[in-house]
Amino acid sequence: MALQTLSLNRSYDGMQGVYRHDSRETQTAMTFSVYVPPYREGAKLAVVWYLSGLTCTHANVTEKGEFRSACAEHGLIFVAPDTSPRGEGVPGDPANSYDFGLGAGFYVDATEAPFVRNYRMWGYVTEELPKLVAEHFPVDTTRQSIMGHSMGGHGALTAALRHPGRYRAASAFAPIVAPSRVPWGVKALGGYLGNDKAGWRKHDATALIEDGARFREFLVDYGDADQFLAEQLRPELLQTVCEKAHIPLTLRRQNGYDHSYYFISTFMGDHLRWHAQRLKA
Amino acid sequence: MALQTLSLNRSYDGMQGVYRHDSRETQTAMTFSVYVPPYREGAKLAVVWYLSGLTCTHANVTEKGEFRSACAEHGLIFVAPDTSPRGEGVPGDPANSYDFGLGAGFYVDATEAPFVRNYRMWGYVTEELPKLVAEHFPVDTTRQSIMGHSMGGHGALTAALRHPGRYRAASAFAPIVAPSRVPWGVKALGGYLGNDKAGWRKHDATALIEDGARFREFLVDYGDADQFLAEQLRPELLQTVCEKAHIPLTLRRQNGYDHSYYFISTFMGDHLRWHAQRLKA
Repeated sequence: MALQTLSLNRSYDGMQGVYRHDSRETQTAMTFSVYVPPYREGAKLAVVWYLSGLTCTHANVTEKGEFRSACAEHGLIFVAPDTSPRGEGVPGDPANSYDFGLGAGFYVDATEAPFVRNYRMWGYVTEELPKLVAEHFPVDTTRQSIMGHSMGGHGALTAALRHPGRYRAASAFAPIVAPSRVPWGVKALGGYLGNDKAGWRKHDATALIEDGARFREFLVDYGDADQFLAEQLRPELLQTVCEKAHIPLTLRRQNGYDHSYYFISTFMGDHLRWHAQRLKA
Repeated sequence: MALQTLSLNRSYDGMQGVYRHDSRETQTAMTFSVYVPPYREGAKLAVVWYLSGLTCTHANVTEKGEFRSACAEHGLIFVAPDTSPRGEGVPGDPANSYDFGLGAGFYVDATEAPFVRNYRMWGYVTEELPKLVAEHFPVDTTRQSIMGHSMGGHGALTAALRHPGRYRAASAFAPIVAPSRVPWGVKALGGYLGNDKAGWRKHDATALIEDGARFREFLVDYGDADQFLAEQLRPELLQTVCEKAHIPLTLRRQNGYDHSYYFISTFMGDHLRWHAQRLKA
């Protein structure tokens, strides 16, 4: 599969790249970023997948995430996909709001018109892009982990629960843990997957756990000054099902932090060290 | 002097703020950012001034600079001003180019029409803003240092050379070291200060040193893949005058790095550690 390099900048002695390719899943050009830390010729490196939140592209975490220092230190490749298909002919939210359509793919494969054609972010992020990245970068595919923020935290948790053999670690910043039960999720899952809520359960981390999915452990940070905490994120719902299912969950309430990249970047190094320990084990 | 808070985000256990005020110097509203690290009630902290390059506002380094981790570790306040006056009625470059006018104040007080009224970035950055910051933040004014990038590296070097008693340390990323002799500088100094080149010398680090100005030492990093290196930056000119004047200069050529924030952020922690050592001494 062909890959176009949009930019390449040396950073922390590795290379931060931004790439574009024509996606089979979304039927659009897709842009993503990859940081490759300094490494010995011929080595294969562990890879951390980062899924972004509503309104983001690959650029937000690439510019503001402060992940390269820790990736260089621990020898981790860091991949940041976009959050939806984009381009001419891709339908957005008719109401033009920020929480559905463009920038809000919610990491599902849509079944509903008019989204069914392009909104294939589940297949894109869990199948197509991993193959492309493995082809073009020095990735050890047996050592992958996943993390994300908000909507991307939802994506990371559901990807881990449905592919527990592929990802060795999963963590999240301020994730949406129960999309079936919060406004952002109800709008997105209804819009992309239709009104039959049975189909939503495999895209809801708490429902997946209730239905028997398991993962070895989770690390989740959230800020207690996060404006979306009580209505959209509801980390206590994840805590309840993890306790019941005996899934170890390290859930940390961070005092005074909000939903922004100022929060994410503060704890990014910590998460990557945690991932690195599990990717090397 | 009144200060309006535009945003305030917890980060690395400190607070990243963005503020606006009406500047007496520029006769406009000016926006700047201040990071205050975690500190003990009643303590006064050292402050690092960061001057940005062409086209930047306070936001570039605030979002991409990766300085908060080191500032939190070393207890440093970090201030990032804008690079020019802005707003209705502020003249820009008639040709609308990026290297003069808006976003390109060059840290001088203009003497030429129509710039003389608003383009007072020297007085703003070295006099007005320091007083304002000292009034509103827990600053130990006896412990200040200054750094900058490109045009802002020029600003930092000239500020240090003209106020050697105020700044305890000065460093730069890819600075313009001899504006009188490079296209960016000739355009800016000519445009703001007029054609009499005698008036340019106090805004040219190499000329200042030739004319007798001194500073205790400099740290300068540049990337050898910087597209502006040979034509605009010319670090060897600083090296020559520093050697002659016996000013210790640590000039580091960084292999493969360009002019971007991917370069700056890589070496930011290193510069701040260097500043912290000198601010605590």
